[in-house]
Amino acid sequence: MTEPGINGERLWNSLMELARIGATERGGVCRLALTEEDRRGRDLFVRWCEEAGCRVRVDAMGNIFARRAGREDTLAPVLSGSHLDSQPTGGKFDGAYGVMAALEAVRTLNDHGIETRRPLEIVSWTNEEGSRFAPAMVGSGVWAGAFDLDYGHSRTDADGVRLGQALAAIGYAGVTMDTNERPAAYLEAHIEQGPILEQEGQTIGVVLGVQGMRWFEITVTGQDAHAGPTPMEGRRDALLAAARAIVAVNQAGLSQTPDGRATVGVIRNRSNSTNVIPGEVFFSVDLRHPQVTALDVMEANLREQCEAIAADSGTGFVMRRIWDSPPVAFADPCIDAVRAGAQTGGYRHRDIYSGAGHDAVYVARVAPTGMIFVPCAGGLSHNEQESATPEDLAAGGDVLLRAMFRLADT
Amino acid sequence: MTEPGINGERLWNSLMELARIGATERGGVCRLALTEEDRRGRDLFVRWCEEAGCRVRVDAMGNIFARRAGREDTLAPVLSGSHLDSQPTGGKFDGAYGVMAALEAVRTLNDHGIETRRPLEIVSWTNEEGSRFAPAMVGSGVWAGAFDLDYGHSRTDADGVRLGQALAAIGYAGVTMDTNERPAAYLEAHIEQGPILEQEGQTIGVVLGVQGMRWFEITVTGQDAHAGPTPMEGRRDALLAAARAIVAVNQAGLSQTPDGRATVGVIRNRSNSTNVIPGEVFFSVDLRHPQVTALDVMEANLREQCEAIAADSGTGFVMRRIWDSPPVAFADPCIDAVRAGAQTGGYRHRDIYSGAGHDAVYVARVAPTGMIFVPCAGGLSHNEQESATPEDLAAGGDVLLRAMFRLADT
Repeated sequence: MTEPGINGERLWNSLMELARIGATERGGVCRLALTEEDRRGRDLFVRWCEEAGCRVRVDAMGNIFARRAGREDTLAPVLSGSHLDSQPTGGKFDGAYGVMAALEAVRTLNDHGIETRRPLEIVSWTNEEGSRFAPAMVGSGVWAGAFDLDYGHSRTDADGVRLGQALAAIGYAGVTMDTNERPAAYLEAHIEQGPILEQEGQTIGVVLGVQGMRWFEITVTGQDAHAGPTPMEGRRDALLAAARAIVAVNQAGLSQTPDGRATVGVIRNRSNSTNVIPGEVFFSVDLRHPQVTALDVMEANLREQCEAIAADSGTGFVMRRIWDSPPVAFADPCIDAVRAGAQTGGYRHRDIYSGAGHDAVYVARVAPTGMIFVPCAGGLSHNEQESATPEDLAAGGDVLLRAMFRLADT
Repeated sequence: MTEPGINGERLWNSLMELARIGATERGGVCRLALTEEDRRGRDLFVRWCEEAGCRVRVDAMGNIFARRAGREDTLAPVLSGSHLDSQPTGGKFDGAYGVMAALEAVRTLNDHGIETRRPLEIVSWTNEEGSRFAPAMVGSGVWAGAFDLDYGHSRTDADGVRLGQALAAIGYAGVTMDTNERPAAYLEAHIEQGPILEQEGQTIGVVLGVQGMRWFEITVTGQDAHAGPTPMEGRRDALLAAARAIVAVNQAGLSQTPDGRATVGVIRNRSNSTNVIPGEVFFSVDLRHPQVTALDVMEANLREQCEAIAADSGTGFVMRRIWDSPPVAFADPCIDAVRAGAQTGGYRHRDIYSGAGHDAVYVARVAPTGMIFVPCAGGLSHNEQESATPEDLAAGGDVLLRAMFRLADT
């Protein structure tokens, strides 16, 4: 390629400097959305962008855009970024990495005096984590039209503070949403938040899309009875039936490898007493897959298994689907640009789906979108122990620069 | 037979009169040990015994013995009874039935002027339920030498009141334990507290003994991980492993039908979050069987299964046996007397094991012991809905009289 490699040391140093804002004793970060820590993080980011020659604007949701002019500056820009807010016991890389990687791409182009055809924009989305204000990804969600602005402003934290108030309090309440001009492409670099790249010794994940997700609540009703006198035959043991269903959920996931995921994360047993045969058990099911058809198969499989277990065990299953988030397929030009960046950079890479939600999910509704994953230690995230190597982070930044450069020239 | 049938109506009326003391709005009884309600129940019982010509004495644990003289009055007596205390939301029959049935046997003999060779004694044991003072069955336990008297007196309720104080407060603190003379036999009539007799249309359970019981606490350790990005292969899902173990526990019980019981009553999942693969799960196991060898087989089976599941799922199982209560086999002469009573009375009957503990467990340590079960609706007990029919209760009383008469003549 013609474009130069990024400065991995500068990227790392920027991440470490940013991580001091809201640093926790255990090496993590607590920078909840629209707090004083978030303001300081935003201020630092804005200063760096301005030092890099960018023009900064803030929209009515507090999303920050920093624009680097292009040779044909009226063309739609190539946008890249992520978020600066964190979980309460978050790490240094989730979100911050995507923003700093985009900044580093711009800095590198500046270093070498390279102009792109399209303008470039770095973005930091407001309240991605959803830890202070639910739901998550509300800044990108309003920008992409998934929610209206009133909805975004009326989100309320645990102390009753509205998101709109909190934006004004830290000086990041812009006036309009500025959604007339949609970007030509959006790229988001992120740690994987899963173990696949690390386990396979890959450096770059070329993200094809985001898994669809369906959540279910299942209540099993049997009959409470004394564990001593009640014979095994004729018991209506709700926990035993739930246990068989948990095994079936796992099988539904295994039937859709490598991309399917099926998890029971919650279980509650109403009686929960050593000598009482359980009469009512509640459990959750989380099904994920990048293809709707595969989700349909998993769900049908689950329902069939639950019905069979219910009939066989004399219990009743009531299943409620409480959430259905369809899969997102990223745009081929973005996927191709990321893959080409990994190939030309000589990085070990593989195609991958995101199992977690990102701002890119909403952005993909209105612009061609792609993501770049880099490994994180043990797949750990939303955790103060979250960790990634400077080398992998630099590789991801390098692939981002290559992909942005390519997309900005088309 | 030569002895007359009991008066079922008088037995029923006595039970109903007794049930007024501590009656709950929902038709149950709350007569916790050594409360004012228990005192009133005891006073009524003592008055009835005296009216029936018995000599009443109270021992140092508040156990009440009412003696009807025999033809050879220096012989060891035939003892029968149960307890008058109840659970906080108990029923009308658990315990009270065994005491009233023994009283009815004496009353019937009085009606017909029949003397027995041995003296008869009716007993009401203190604090069988263990609801106010733990452990359960402490009155019969001290009497039988399972606990010493100081231990019994030092039991403390939730308000810090000692059992010894509570005995004195209601006027039922006797002076000595009077354990020189052990009875020739002990019989206890009781509702089944299980569903077997009702389901099979049997009237009388000839109780062969009490199941042995072993309790285990099992902690499964896997690895918490995000339900989205983490592939199915390589997960270390503690809840899935526990679910497989719960199925294995049930199979261990089914392998020992009809007498084996294996139950998981408690489950706790540390993370318990919909999108987190569980990393640590705790569950309990309750194994019961009348034979030690069968308990050994069930336990070995359980350990083997848990080891196999652990190895297969990449999880660790830590299993602790927290309680081991050996089986109790009742005495053949008592069992024979009960069975003969059922046969000569023409009642449908079957041999059965008790799945629950009773005062008879302790008494069996020092005297030949047997029990008589009668059906209760739905197997329900320790519940205000506890219910039994006057006919079945009368049948049990009739079998008790026949068995006592036979044992008192030998």
